[in-house]
Amino acid sequence: MSSTTFTEITEPFLRFARSQRPQIDEALERLTHYDGDCPDVLREAIRYSLLAPGKRLRPILVLMAAESCGSDPRRAMPAACAVEMIHAYSLVHDDLPSMDDDRLRRGRPTCHVRYGESLAILVGDALLAQAFEVLSAGITPPARALACCRRLASAAGPCSLVGGQVDDLRASSMAMGPAELERIHRRKTGALFRASLQLGGIVAGASPSEQEALTSYGEHVGLAFQILDDLLDIWGNPTSLGKSAGKDAAQGKPTYPALLGEAASAGRAEQLLAEARGAVDGLKHAERLCALTWYVLQRDH
Amino acid sequence: MSSTTFTEITEPFLRFARSQRPQIDEALERLTHYDGDCPDVLREAIRYSLLAPGKRLRPILVLMAAESCGSDPRRAMPAACAVEMIHAYSLVHDDLPSMDDDRLRRGRPTCHVRYGESLAILVGDALLAQAFEVLSAGITPPARALACCRRLASAAGPCSLVGGQVDDLRASSMAMGPAELERIHRRKTGALFRASLQLGGIVAGASPSEQEALTSYGEHVGLAFQILDDLLDIWGNPTSLGKSAGKDAAQGKPTYPALLGEAASAGRAEQLLAEARGAVDGLKHAERLCALTWYVLQRDH
Repeated sequence: MSSTTFTEITEPFLRFARSQRPQIDEALERLTHYDGDCPDVLREAIRYSLLAPGKRLRPILVLMAAESCGSDPRRAMPAACAVEMIHAYSLVHDDLPSMDDDRLRRGRPTCHVRYGESLAILVGDALLAQAFEVLSAGITPPARALACCRRLASAAGPCSLVGGQVDDLRASSMAMGPAELERIHRRKTGALFRASLQLGGIVAGASPSEQEALTSYGEHVGLAFQILDDLLDIWGNPTSLGKSAGKDAAQGKPTYPALLGEAASAGRAEQLLAEARGAVDGLKHAERLCALTWYVLQRDH
Repeated sequence: MSSTTFTEITEPFLRFARSQRPQIDEALERLTHYDGDCPDVLREAIRYSLLAPGKRLRPILVLMAAESCGSDPRRAMPAACAVEMIHAYSLVHDDLPSMDDDRLRRGRPTCHVRYGESLAILVGDALLAQAFEVLSAGITPPARALACCRRLASAAGPCSLVGGQVDDLRASSMAMGPAELERIHRRKTGALFRASLQLGGIVAGASPSEQEALTSYGEHVGLAFQILDDLLDIWGNPTSLGKSAGKDAAQGKPTYPALLGEAASAGRAEQLLAEARGAVDGLKHAERLCALTWYVLQRDH
């Protein structure tokens, strides 16, 4: 598919992203002023990590899901911010010396390189806790706020995000097949994608069939996103990637391309994205959710 | 006061603690089975940290507060477990090499000594997230569960627990007066004590004046507890303390005894505990809450 066609086909998503991203950034900015009980250096380090330039893909997914189920996306903004806080916390902790030991993130020194290891751990802790304060204070009515808390806590917990990271850290020393790799990515990357869609749906009061569509879409997009991330690690360059390319291979990490080959991995991603499109066929603004799947596929361009 | 008198005066608290502690331990045990998506080593490390023998003081405070406002303490058990999870997470992260670098906790190797640094960080992350899952899944009705989430998230966040730890870590290199030290302890230790009481009150549907009494009690007991902890660091021995004595002084940490002297520190603790007793005068089972203040005072005996 030519790049012109890609521009056209991704436009419904790009238009939404362009209109929402400044509002997400503004909301995140407002949420990180804090009062005098927050030490200045902690505030600065949290803002350094959370407000770093980024695609804001997960919060945009929250807002798209809410609108696809008939809600004004502004009602879902606290959920969008909470999801981005969980995402930012997981990046800060994943980058730590005792974890992936990454020195570069989004083209800038990682939090622990800039502020030291102990503060980076505490930045992650603070963002993880604050996500639940933002959700519980910002979403109405209480039953929906509570359902959001429960869903996000589960996605961030030992059987999802954290469990996936534990297995991922140990993966380099384990022989592994594609099924086991997919199991890791379903928790480490997929769970938060899925939760993003689900939170948007919860805020909008989605019907069970709408929730099912969003869940399936989130799972498939999340998995495809991770496969494409693995491919980017081979194809990408540090400028567009914002991190060191070839790092996975250097660390002996199992990746989709390493296990399946590059062509089969790309094929698997395309197949997953097609399934994602099929899942949201009946939702409002489905063309925007579909456009995102094309955007994800070409995000290295 | 002789030790016999202490036994009598602390008995209402001790009786309640003896009856509730096994139920708290059983509830925590049940909450850490997890399904197959939780890696075995993570499950084991979480249980090692959370189920370690302990006084369970904070969860007992949650249950006492609930009963003091007319609720069956069993209804508050999820809140009690959530508070203990936050407490356990904060201990695991505080002990890390880049933080307080403690090798011994409750008489056993700390989590990172036993399981490595990366897993210890992830154990803390998992417990912090799970606390909110436990709250949101276990407390009814939704409005009370949500109020619990909001209160606990705020107590764990950048302006409380995490902010206090940031200032505490930097404290050893800062000149500091008693007011600044109290500001640290109010966030690092006091916030979770206060939240424990408040969560119990929320579950029980406490009136505003009951909540005010619980809040004041929690703040005063929390601060006294920290002063006594500082004194224990001087007086204690590693067996009863479960950690290395004299560590604060060795690290050049500011403590109440270092700033005020031992006698004045003990006097301040006694004064705070007297104020705590005054605050809960009108609540049900006040004698039990009062008994706890005597228990705290003599816990090194």
